[in-house]
Amino acid sequence: MAAVHPLDAAIAIESLGEGRWRGRTSPAYANMAGPFGGITAAGLLNAVMLDAEKRGDPVAMTVNFCGAIADGEFEIASRLVRGGKYTQHWSLDLMQAGETRGTASIVTGARGDVFSHHDSEMPGAPAPEEIKPLGMPAPLKWIEAYEFRFVEGRPEIVSEPFEPLRDSRSLLWIADRPARPLDHLSLAAIADSFLLRLVKVRGTMAPMGTVSLTTYFHATAAEIARHGTGPVLGMAHAKRMHANFFDQHMELWARDGTLLVTGTQVAWYKR
Amino acid sequence: MAAVHPLDAAIAIESLGEGRWRGRTSPAYANMAGPFGGITAAGLLNAVMLDAEKRGDPVAMTVNFCGAIADGEFEIASRLVRGGKYTQHWSLDLMQAGETRGTASIVTGARGDVFSHHDSEMPGAPAPEEIKPLGMPAPLKWIEAYEFRFVEGRPEIVSEPFEPLRDSRSLLWIADRPARPLDHLSLAAIADSFLLRLVKVRGTMAPMGTVSLTTYFHATAAEIARHGTGPVLGMAHAKRMHANFFDQHMELWARDGTLLVTGTQVAWYKR
Repeated sequence: MAAVHPLDAAIAIESLGEGRWRGRTSPAYANMAGPFGGITAAGLLNAVMLDAEKRGDPVAMTVNFCGAIADGEFEIASRLVRGGKYTQHWSLDLMQAGETRGTASIVTGARGDVFSHHDSEMPGAPAPEEIKPLGMPAPLKWIEAYEFRFVEGRPEIVSEPFEPLRDSRSLLWIADRPARPLDHLSLAAIADSFLLRLVKVRGTMAPMGTVSLTTYFHATAAEIARHGTGPVLGMAHAKRMHANFFDQHMELWARDGTLLVTGTQVAWYKR
Repeated sequence: MAAVHPLDAAIAIESLGEGRWRGRTSPAYANMAGPFGGITAAGLLNAVMLDAEKRGDPVAMTVNFCGAIADGEFEIASRLVRGGKYTQHWSLDLMQAGETRGTASIVTGARGDVFSHHDSEMPGAPAPEEIKPLGMPAPLKWIEAYEFRFVEGRPEIVSEPFEPLRDSRSLLWIADRPARPLDHLSLAAIADSFLLRLVKVRGTMAPMGTVSLTTYFHATAAEIARHGTGPVLGMAHAKRMHANFFDQHMELWARDGTLLVTGTQVAWYKR
């Protein structure tokens, strides 16, 4: 029997009865404090994927990080708010110590063979084989769960803010480490695997964290499976950092030029 | 006494007790069927703005359109999920006929005078005074509630799909009609005032509708107020239309080059 991939182990949840699940944080995806946000997003999505009522493929999810998630067990409460012929709307809460520490809305949809059109082009990048992956050990544990091959915009930490500031953009090949077949769950986590753009721009650490994370999936399960274990080409950038909050925007592309995921997030920063 | 602006009339809600509100759709913001999604978003935001517990300025909101909203009365149930020193997380339901027809998460935050940085540039555009606004009457009632001055990418409806397809981008000056001082509420509505990008690309009508709408605010109430009644420069484009769903992305800029709002939405389409 094959060993369970660390991602699958991290998002494993057990049913506590209708719409109630228990999970636990995984040391393999530990962040500065508590878990990497992407693994929390994937775990919440998993509660919908495993639900017997789920129809269709994931289309959109928004995760709100409203309290610090501590290492250890948590519970997920999920509810099918509305289900129709074309979409299902799910609402989820992540609870710890009797408090809501995360909420999510997830939309699944029936996806058929209709009009299809790309109005965007994959950023140019050398083949992943031509780029050396980031070395180990990494400054945060979850970073070691990915193979990052930077095309441009690798974040650096320095003692004083860059002068002039750097731009917010990063372009890189990303894959699960060890390799794992791509699916909506792994993409939900990879969508949050770009470091916070304020670090990229300024080069210094300061208290900050994602507040709300929105991810759109542009492919069916069968279409994603065609891309094997990836890697995917990821691009992230920010538009404005102002008055304690900043946005960032991302895309994930399959190697053949298919856009699989787009998304955005807003993060809080202290100074 | 000054007349109530149609926007304020449309988003007016009366308290039914703690966290419960009653509103009604407005003919001035009628869409093909039911209300314009932007006015629904602004109405939901208003339930937070009017709450005595609200602290800080709106930062992020995601509205999920999970059922058709009929013309007439509706109720909003709002709940402060978590409130801390820096952010508040609100969760809202829009109910009609005993059913949830919309849900929203709204984050407000304390915004201070900290590091500020634009990593984006306002698209070039001629002054709004140099562009004739769209004429009246408009094909949908809510369109008459805005003064749209297209710089480029004005959507057109034709009998057969464009060949080749057009790109998804539109750039235009947008203001409330009649003029109204900008605030988070009016920006929440304007953020959804771009026609669905599939119409722009293909040029034909087909059943379609917004499923989930995410909007980030990049300015405080005082900063927005400095821009008077606008107009704001709006840019919208899509990245992929595939298998019954497509994304679109938008920015709203003040005339002086300040980015006020960014956002994204995913829409369903039938064919």
